[in-house]
Amino acid sequence: MAELSNQYLEEVVKACRPYSSGGSVVDYIPGLDQSHSTDLGVTIVTMDGEVYGAGEKTNAFPLQSVSKIITLMLALEDFGKETVFQKVDMEPTDDAFNAIRNLEEDEKQLPHNPMINSGAIAVASLIKGNDVEEKFGRLLDFVYKITCNDQIEMDEEVYQAEQKNGARNRALAYFMESLGIISTDELEDALDLYFRLNSIKTNSLDLAKIGCFLANHGKSIEDDSYVIDPSHVRTVKAIMLTSGMYNESGTYAVEVGFPAKSGVAGTIVGTVPGKMGIGIYGPAINKKGNSVAGGRVLRTLSRELCLNLFHG
Amino acid sequence: MAELSNQYLEEVVKACRPYSSGGSVVDYIPGLDQSHSTDLGVTIVTMDGEVYGAGEKTNAFPLQSVSKIITLMLALEDFGKETVFQKVDMEPTDDAFNAIRNLEEDEKQLPHNPMINSGAIAVASLIKGNDVEEKFGRLLDFVYKITCNDQIEMDEEVYQAEQKNGARNRALAYFMESLGIISTDELEDALDLYFRLNSIKTNSLDLAKIGCFLANHGKSIEDDSYVIDPSHVRTVKAIMLTSGMYNESGTYAVEVGFPAKSGVAGTIVGTVPGKMGIGIYGPAINKKGNSVAGGRVLRTLSRELCLNLFHG
Amino acid sequence: MAELSNQYLEEVVKACRPYSSGGSVVDYIPGLDQSHSTDLGVTIVTMDGEVYGAGEKTNAFPLQSVSKIITLMLALEDFGKETVFQKVDMEPTDDAFNAIRNLEEDEKQLPHNPMINSGAIAVASLIKGNDVEEKFGRLLDFVYKITCNDQIEMDEEVYQAEQKNGARNRALAYFMESLGIISTDELEDALDLYFRLNSIKTNSLDLAKIGCFLANHGKSIEDDSYVIDPSHVRTVKAIMLTSGMYNESGTYAVEVGFPAKSGVAGTIVGTVPGKMGIGIYGPAINKKGNSVAGGRVLRTLSRELCLNLFHG
Amino acid sequence: MAELSNQYLEEVVKACRPYSSGGSVVDYIPGLDQSHSTDLGVTIVTMDGEVYGAGEKTNAFPLQSVSKIITLMLALEDFGKETVFQKVDMEPTDDAFNAIRNLEEDEKQLPHNPMINSGAIAVASLIKGNDVEEKFGRLLDFVYKITCNDQIEMDEEVYQAEQKNGARNRALAYFMESLGIISTDELEDALDLYFRLNSIKTNSLDLAKIGCFLANHGKSIEDDSYVIDPSHVRTVKAIMLTSGMYNESGTYAVEVGFPAKSGVAGTIVGTVPGKMGIGIYGPAINKKGNSVAGGRVLRTLSRELCLNLFHG
Repeated sequence: MAELSNQYLEEVVKACRPYSSGGSVVDYIPGLDQSHSTDLGVTIVTMDGEVYGAGEKTNAFPLQSVSKIITLMLALEDFGKETVFQKVDMEPTDDAFNAIRNLEEDEKQLPHNPMINSGAIAVASLIKGNDVEEKFGRLLDFVYKITCNDQIEMDEEVYQAEQKNGARNRALAYFMESLGIISTDELEDALDLYFRLNSIKTNSLDLAKIGCFLANHGKSIEDDSYVIDPSHVRTVKAIMLTSGMYNESGTYAVEVGFPAKSGVAGTIVGTVPGKMGIGIYGPAINKKGNSVAGGRVLRTLSRELCLNLFHG
Repeated sequence: MAELSNQYLEEVVKACRPYSSGGSVVDYIPGLDQSHSTDLGVTIVTMDGEVYGAGEKTNAFPLQSVSKIITLMLALEDFGKETVFQKVDMEPTDDAFNAIRNLEEDEKQLPHNPMINSGAIAVASLIKGNDVEEKFGRLLDFVYKITCNDQIEMDEEVYQAEQKNGARNRALAYFMESLGIISTDELEDALDLYFRLNSIKTNSLDLAKIGCFLANHGKSIEDDSYVIDPSHVRTVKAIMLTSGMYNESGTYAVEVGFPAKSGVAGTIVGTVPGKMGIGIYGPAINKKGNSVAGGRVLRTLSRELCLNLFHG
Repeated sequence: MAELSNQYLEEVVKACRPYSSGGSVVDYIPGLDQSHSTDLGVTIVTMDGEVYGAGEKTNAFPLQSVSKIITLMLALEDFGKETVFQKVDMEPTDDAFNAIRNLEEDEKQLPHNPMINSGAIAVASLIKGNDVEEKFGRLLDFVYKITCNDQIEMDEEVYQAEQKNGARNRALAYFMESLGIISTDELEDALDLYFRLNSIKTNSLDLAKIGCFLANHGKSIEDDSYVIDPSHVRTVKAIMLTSGMYNESGTYAVEVGFPAKSGVAGTIVGTVPGKMGIGIYGPAINKKGNSVAGGRVLRTLSRELCLNLFHG
Repeated sequence: MAELSNQYLEEVVKACRPYSSGGSVVDYIPGLDQSHSTDLGVTIVTMDGEVYGAGEKTNAFPLQSVSKIITLMLALEDFGKETVFQKVDMEPTDDAFNAIRNLEEDEKQLPHNPMINSGAIAVASLIKGNDVEEKFGRLLDFVYKITCNDQIEMDEEVYQAEQKNGARNRALAYFMESLGIISTDELEDALDLYFRLNSIKTNSLDLAKIGCFLANHGKSIEDDSYVIDPSHVRTVKAIMLTSGMYNESGTYAVEVGFPAKSGVAGTIVGTVPGKMGIGIYGPAINKKGNSVAGGRVLRTLSRELCLNLFHG
C-alpha cells in the first residue's frame, strides 16, 4: 500500500497523463480546447484536513455535471427524500446522459436518476427561492459552505453557451412538463438554474473539498458541524456509485469501488467515505463522457491506497 | 446500534413478516405456492463463524437468479476478467431481467451485465467441461466449497419446469448466437447449464454462507484458504451492488448500501464486506422481482447494525 | 354495387352511428364533449361536382391533424419534394403520432413522415412568409382555394388550448432543433403555425372538398385549373395511404383501400383518385385516434361503392 | 406514355443497369456473389397473357422474402382473415425486417405484419399439414398453380445455408413461443417451413406470374378460375403496398405507387391491379435490402406506363 504525499501524487499524475491521448476535449465549452488535452490535475483532501496535489491542480473549469450532486443535496435538504424522489427515480440506466427515450417508453414516466440531465433539471425545479437569482444564490451559498471558498462564481461565457446550445435540455424539460413532472411555471427557472449550475467555475481543490464533505457525512470541513443531514449525503454517495460516471458507472464500481461523479469538462469528484475527497481535472474525455487520464488516476489511487469499498 | 443475536433476528422477522402481504408468490416454480406467501426466514453467518437465524430459515427453495453470482465467480476463476467481460458488459441497466431489447439496439451488442438472464447465459457458455454434466458437476463442487455443504443438489422437478418454460431464455441464447456472443456448439449446453443452476435447492443457511464467502474475500469458511482470487470476489460484489436486485438495485444501494442478489423464489443473498453474509427466504415478491418482506429485513439490518458502506 | 345518393348516405349513417359507442370524445378540445359522442356526419363531393350528405354534416370542428396534409401540400408547392424530404422522411411508423423516440434512436434522425406531429412541425417550419401571420395567411388562402370557402377561420379558443397544452409539441420542436432539423429562428413560428393550423374550423363539406381536390389531382373544383402540381398531390395521397390513419393506417389500407387522413376531433378526409372526396365528422374516437363510426362509414362506402384501389 | 414491348424493356434495362453500382450482393446466399452485381432481368406478364422480357430474365435465384406473400395467401385461404390476424398484425413498421424489439416493447405483442421475418414465421406456423413435408408440398403446389410451372423446386444448398444461419430467426420464433403466438409443437415446423420457402428457386418469369396472379384478383392465368378468394388477394396487395419493400415501403408508395415485394436476393414482384405482374432480378441491393437497379426499373415503368394507383 502506497503512502499519500505530494510526491506520490506527482508520480501518479506522471504515470496517468499519457492516457489522455485516448480521449478528446469537447469543443462547446468556452475556454476549453484541444490545447488542454494533456492537462491533468489532482487534489486530495483528507478527513483530518490534509491537502495533497499534483499537476494542473489550480486550473479553473466549469462544474458541468458535477453540479448535479450539489443540486441534489440542497433539494434533499430542502424537501426530504420522499418529495425529491417523486420527481425523479434513483435507478441506474443504460441510456445516455441526455436521453429522452425512457420518459416516453417506461411505465414509470420519471427520469431514471438525478445524475442524468432530465433528472437534474427535475431536481432543479424543486430548489426554493422567489426567482432564479435567489435560487441560484442559495445554491452558490451552499457551495461556499461545502468548499469554504466564497470566491466561486459563475462563468458568464459558459452560461451564454449553455443557453445557446440548450435545445436538447429544453426538449427534456418540455417533455417533463407534458408528463406533469415540471409545471409550466417552474420550467424556465429550472432550465435557467440548470444552465447556471453547469457554468460554476471551480478548480480541483474545490472538487476535492466537495468529495471530502461527502466523505465526512455532510459536516463542514471548518467546524465539523452538519451542513446537511448525513442520511442525505449517504443517499447522494449511493447514487453516485450506481450512476455518477454516466454509462461507465458499473465499470467504475468494479475498478474503482467508491462513489464518483464526472463532468464533460473532464472533471471528477471522488469520495471515499470516512477517508478523503478527490478532485480531478483532465479534459480529454472518452466516448462515455469521462476523463480518460482522470479515470486512470482514480483506478490507481483505489488500488494503491486500498480505497475500494468492496474490499472490506 | 442493535446487537446481533437469535432473539434480535426473531424480532426483525416478526416486524417485517407483515410486509409480505404487499407481494405475491410466483406460480411457475414447483413446490412454491401462495400457501407460502407469509414465509420469512433469515440466517446470518459472521466472519468469525457465528450463525444466527430466525423464521422459516430451514425451508428449501431453488437458487434461481442467485445462481448468477456462482456462475460468474467460477467463470472469472476459470478465465479471468478480460475473457469474461468480452462476453458480457458490467453496466447496470433499466431493462427487465429478461430483456432482449439492448442486444438489438445498443451499439455495443453485449448483455448489459451478468445479473440479467442474457448475461448469465453468456457467462454459462464459458464454464469449462467436456459435457453439461461435467460443467454442472464443477459448479456444484464450487457450491460445496463455498457452503461446506455437499448435500446440495438439483431439484429435478424445478429443472423440468425451467426447460418447459424456457422459450424466452432460448430466444436470448439464439439472439446471442446470431451476434456471435455464443457459438452454435456452446448454445445447448449453456442453456441446459443455466436451467440446472436455477434449479439448485438450498436454504437460508446456504445463502448466508455464500454471502459470508463473498464478505470474506473468497476464503473458505472452514480453513481460511482462498477458494478463488479475491479480486474476482470484489468484482462480483461491485456488480451485485449496481445490478443485483433487478431494476431496484439503485434503490437498494441507497436504502441498504451493501451488495445483494435476489431470486424470484423470494431469496436474497446479502454480503457486508469484512463483516457477514445474510441469507433470506421470503417468497412474496414485488413487481420488480424482489422479496418484499426480505427487502424490509435487509433495510432494517443495514440501519440497526450500521452496515451501509456509504456511511463510512 | 350501391348507388350514391343522399338517401343511401342516410342509410349508411344510420347503420354506422351505433358503432360510436365503442369510442370516446377527447376532453381537451373546446366545444367538443361527450354530448357529441353519437354525432356522425358525412359529405361526399364527386369529381363532377355533385354533393351528397347525411347526418350532422354541418357541425363545425377544428381540423387538428387533417391540417397536416394542407401544410404538406403548400410546402411541396413552395419548395419541391427534394427540399421538403430533407426535413422529414416519408416512411410509415409503428410509433404513436406524438412519439419522440425515433428522433433519438434512429440512425436517420428525421421525423418518420409528415403525418405525425414531429414531421408536421418540421414541414411547418418551411412555410414561406415574413412572420407567422403572413405564413398562416398563405395557408388559409390555400384552404380557401381548395374548398372554395373563404369563410373558414381559426377557432381562437381552440388555438389558446393548443398553446396551453403544447408542451409535448414544444419538446418535439426543441429536440429537432438540437438535431439541426429546425433552426432556433424558425422554431417559435413553426410551433405557432402548427397550433393555428390545428385550430382551423371546418365542417364535413370542407373536408369532402379537400378530398375531392386530392382526387382531382390538385385542380380547382371551380375552374379546373391546377392549384398545385399534380405530382405533389400524388405524393400526399401515397403518404396518406401508408401513414394517414395513425397506427391504424395498415388496417385502413386493407379494409378501406384508398387514402385517408384523420384528426382527433373525430374527422376523416377520404380521397378516391379520379372519383370523389369524402368528409366525415364522428367525434367518438378509438385508442388509435380514429373515429369509430367514421371508420365504419369508410369501410362501408369502400365495399358498397367499389372504391378499393387494390381491387383493380 | 410509353408502349410496352420487348424493345422498350431492353431500353429500360439498359438505362437502369448502371444504378446497380450503388448496391452490393449479399454474401450468404449460395450461388450468388459479386460476379452477379450488374445482373438485371425483367419480365412482365399482362392480364391478357402477353409476356415481355429483357436482360438476365432467365437467371434462377431463391425466393427469399418474396415467399412471404405466398405463405400469407395460403394461410388466408386456409383459415380466413380473422384467424391469421390473431397471429400477426397488418400495420407497417419502421423496424428492420428481422427486428425483435416490438415483440418485447409494444402493448400489442404481435409481429407488426406478415412481410417481416417474425410475422412470416408466425404465419408459417398456421399452414396445414401433418408434417413439414406435407406443409411444404402444399405451398409448392400453390406456387405451381400460381405460376403454371411445376418445375419449381427448393434449392438444397440455399436451404442448408438458411438453417445454418438461422439463429436470428430462431430467436424470433422462441420469443413468439414465450408470448404464446406460436406453440412449442408448432415451432420447429414453422422454422423449417420458413427456411424451405426462402430457398424456392425461381426466375423473373415466375415472379411476374405471381404478380399477374395478384393483379388478376387470384384467378389462374390458365383457366381464369379463382385459385383463392379475391378478398385475400386484395388484403395481400394492400399489405405489400404499406410493408412490402422493407423500410423503404413508404418511398415506394410515393415513387412507384403500386404493390411490390422484395427479397434480399435482389428480387422484386410488382403487381398493378387489373393490369400486369412484374418480375425483377437485380442482385445488387441497398442498405434497406432492395434491388437498386430493380427499384429504378419499377420507378421508370410506373412513370412511363402510368401505373401509379394514386394518379387515378
